[in-house]
Amino acid sequence: MKRFLDLAHFERDEVLSLLELARRLENHPEPHALTGKILGLVFFNPSLRTLASFQAGMARLGGTSFVITPGQGTWQLETRLGVKMDGAAAEHVREGIPVLASYCDALGIRAFADGRDLQADLAETNFNAMAELVDKPLINLESAMNHPCQALADWKTMDDLGVPRHGKFVLSWVYHPRALPLAVPAATVHMAAMRGMQVTVLRPEGFELPPQVMEKARRAAALAGGTVHETSDRDEALEGAHIVYAKEWGATVCYGDAEADAELRRGLTHWCVRNDWFTRTAADCRLMHCLPVRRNTAVADEVLDGPRSVVLREAHNRLIVQMAVLYRMLRGVQ
Amino acid sequence: MKRFLDLAHFERDEVLSLLELARRLENHPEPHALTGKILGLVFFNPSLRTLASFQAGMARLGGTSFVITPGQGTWQLETRLGVKMDGAAAEHVREGIPVLASYCDALGIRAFADGRDLQADLAETNFNAMAELVDKPLINLESAMNHPCQALADWKTMDDLGVPRHGKFVLSWVYHPRALPLAVPAATVHMAAMRGMQVTVLRPEGFELPPQVMEKARRAAALAGGTVHETSDRDEALEGAHIVYAKEWGATVCYGDAEADAELRRGLTHWCVRNDWFTRTAADCRLMHCLPVRRNTAVADEVLDGPRSVVLREAHNRLIVQMAVLYRMLRGVQ
Amino acid sequence: MKRFLDLAHFERDEVLSLLELARRLENHPEPHALTGKILGLVFFNPSLRTLASFQAGMARLGGTSFVITPGQGTWQLETRLGVKMDGAAAEHVREGIPVLASYCDALGIRAFADGRDLQADLAETNFNAMAELVDKPLINLESAMNHPCQALADWKTMDDLGVPRHGKFVLSWVYHPRALPLAVPAATVHMAAMRGMQVTVLRPEGFELPPQVMEKARRAAALAGGTVHETSDRDEALEGAHIVYAKEWGATVCYGDAEADAELRRGLTHWCVRNDWFTRTAADCRLMHCLPVRRNTAVADEVLDGPRSVVLREAHNRLIVQMAVLYRMLRGVQ
Repeated sequence: MKRFLDLAHFERDEVLSLLELARRLENHPEPHALTGKILGLVFFNPSLRTLASFQAGMARLGGTSFVITPGQGTWQLETRLGVKMDGAAAEHVREGIPVLASYCDALGIRAFADGRDLQADLAETNFNAMAELVDKPLINLESAMNHPCQALADWKTMDDLGVPRHGKFVLSWVYHPRALPLAVPAATVHMAAMRGMQVTVLRPEGFELPPQVMEKARRAAALAGGTVHETSDRDEALEGAHIVYAKEWGATVCYGDAEADAELRRGLTHWCVRNDWFTRTAADCRLMHCLPVRRNTAVADEVLDGPRSVVLREAHNRLIVQMAVLYRMLRGVQ
Repeated sequence: MKRFLDLAHFERDEVLSLLELARRLENHPEPHALTGKILGLVFFNPSLRTLASFQAGMARLGGTSFVITPGQGTWQLETRLGVKMDGAAAEHVREGIPVLASYCDALGIRAFADGRDLQADLAETNFNAMAELVDKPLINLESAMNHPCQALADWKTMDDLGVPRHGKFVLSWVYHPRALPLAVPAATVHMAAMRGMQVTVLRPEGFELPPQVMEKARRAAALAGGTVHETSDRDEALEGAHIVYAKEWGATVCYGDAEADAELRRGLTHWCVRNDWFTRTAADCRLMHCLPVRRNTAVADEVLDGPRSVVLREAHNRLIVQMAVLYRMLRGVQ
Repeated sequence: MKRFLDLAHFERDEVLSLLELARRLENHPEPHALTGKILGLVFFNPSLRTLASFQAGMARLGGTSFVITPGQGTWQLETRLGVKMDGAAAEHVREGIPVLASYCDALGIRAFADGRDLQADLAETNFNAMAELVDKPLINLESAMNHPCQALADWKTMDDLGVPRHGKFVLSWVYHPRALPLAVPAATVHMAAMRGMQVTVLRPEGFELPPQVMEKARRAAALAGGTVHETSDRDEALEGAHIVYAKEWGATVCYGDAEADAELRRGLTHWCVRNDWFTRTAADCRLMHCLPVRRNTAVADEVLDGPRSVVLREAHNRLIVQMAVLYRMLRGVQ
């Protein structure tokens, strides 16, 4: 495995095999598997789980990491092509990224969406421009439209909990003071579809996921025996749900227009998951969220501190599945 | 040992045993003792010694560390309970701390005093709220009212130097441009008392240590054969002293009131330790300070660069005693 | 080897021996050579290559690193002697540096020029004040007037490419929006002279390298059978060149005067290396640059993306030669 950029690049069987490897490493540690191997981690955006769990994961396998945070103790990196660099950025990714890749055995890059041009973000223009400069194994630590490590961890979490393969999975928009990227919702709807679930995307008008995202998820669902559906009717969506996956994202009808987005979300503060969201769901319905989550804004204390929440398990599974990704990248199939 | 939060949580014999282990590891390195073990370090406040020495200490024992600095390459973390999170903090410690704990074998947290409500700081409200979320071995890297790693290093430093068990220990307030926390003075007075010393707290009026701090130290002194005394008379305090431990802290009569504090300290710039402070002390009296120290403001160059200063040895002992703490936490009694 | 601060501290044979060791470690990894060893890295200024390559190099040899960035998650450090510290800096290097040295087996320090007083910068006042506080092996990660790790990597790069020992080496000033330090040009002209090359420094009037720098290079050239020459005539300089080494630096006729410097460089934006700079050079002439480089300001895309550019190889060689430096420092001659 040379690249881990998108679950959609893998067959369903390959994902299942990765999850099996993750479970093996969880139960039977291999503290010398990656001795001498080095992971480079480049963060253009903040991180907590990714930053900590990748360093911990490499260490648990005997390897080492270094962290680069452009603009913070490091030069700002320019990403645009062909520009005359007379501004704040002292270095271009065309030098910076291959240089870092040359120091390590695998590289991870986090680069969020620009949030201005939806088509450019859907095309992963920025991330792909960097990815093509890297000749080492490469991991997507969250790009404009993807977060495959989170998706894989969430898949494992549902397996751990015995959530039925064809169970009902509701990805619900929740309130946040400002527009957030589409990476996690896009990765999540695809993951649940690829797992074979009955997926419902629940969101207010104006917050529809882009057609390309929905189409991709539908193709995955078709192969796995699942379905993908979209609605703004909360009662309909939550009826019989096994999973409520809460996530904040920006309005897509006015992508990149912060004022119009703020106008749209003004009346939507009641999109905060509370216990009464679970009256029509399956009895053992779980609350998932990729974190960070704003308490009492996106999800209420009563849910996060209650028995339905599995957010800590999701976060812990980041460590486990990423160890599997690193292991397969740096040791191959064993 | 599951927690290292306060020397007062340990019997005197247990502290002596930790110091013995520290000496053993100093003289007989065990470079594979903690192979495969991971230490997570969370810094809500700046650090130099703690940041470097914990990473170095884990490495010297064969282990690994990762560092998280909330708000710097990482989300800001909310600490208050029950709030609606619509401000700058993207994540709550109720998620962030257990997640980080789940990635490592031991966790260290630095969280200074809020500096507004003395009773809340004395109760360690903030630190304890995080501590109760952690089910892994936990180390206090300096909290509102404690700094047990510094205290243990200082104890060892006095042992190294042959300072008499019942020698005279003067904790002296020194000038600083603004109010600093009470963590080190509180930990220091307790440590010296627990070691069995004749402790004098020397400070201007208005800078008395809180009664709870003095009471705790007196209880420790009673068990160890020492005494605890407080004065604003410098001559009386320094008479026959074996140790002058200089430390800056905020006025306690107006805790949290920066203006009143500034007014109180305005005339106190002569509280800067100079050579003439040592005319009445024991001939071999030493100057201690936990660092960082402002030269010629808190302690003069002539003292810091002279033979009385043992501040570098104190700092080096941070490395040594912390290795003992990590060793006992992660390997047990061996 | 206790210190790696300046190539000029070594005989030519010693440098050749270091390069031989670098080549050996490149071809025959020794993943356990530095097991248990710890490198401390202190960055008073930003870094990308140095930060990543030293951590990666220690890890490739089995060792560990910690990174300290004063003022960022760490106290600001005062460097001036004898001052009353009542400003932003909470700690003096006279404490901070020896403390950090006491935690590790070797220390690296990056401290750029102050850029105000040329004679003080030429004397390395700041760096030397710290260096004399360190009793451990010490590496210069770039000081006011030196960057020996870059120089050694560049030497190896020319060896890798078969550039003739006595080939023509042109260090050319190139445009940058503001004055940059003299560290790399000073280290580079000396390195090329010490390698035995015919060195030409090409720069506009007002940007002459200081006489002390030129004299030092001439002494090295005399010993190695090379020459050192200076000109502002681009055609003359580039004629027959084997290497064009592009570098930005500040005007020396008005060192420390940002306005006068800006005035001088206003008309010099055509000092951007383009393909037409290579019409008179040797056919296989290479473009070198230490990075970071501003594209289309200092060097055009057409050169950086073309076959003459060896900037990525230079950067990769940082890793390799630094491993040799660390190996020799921490294991001696083996």
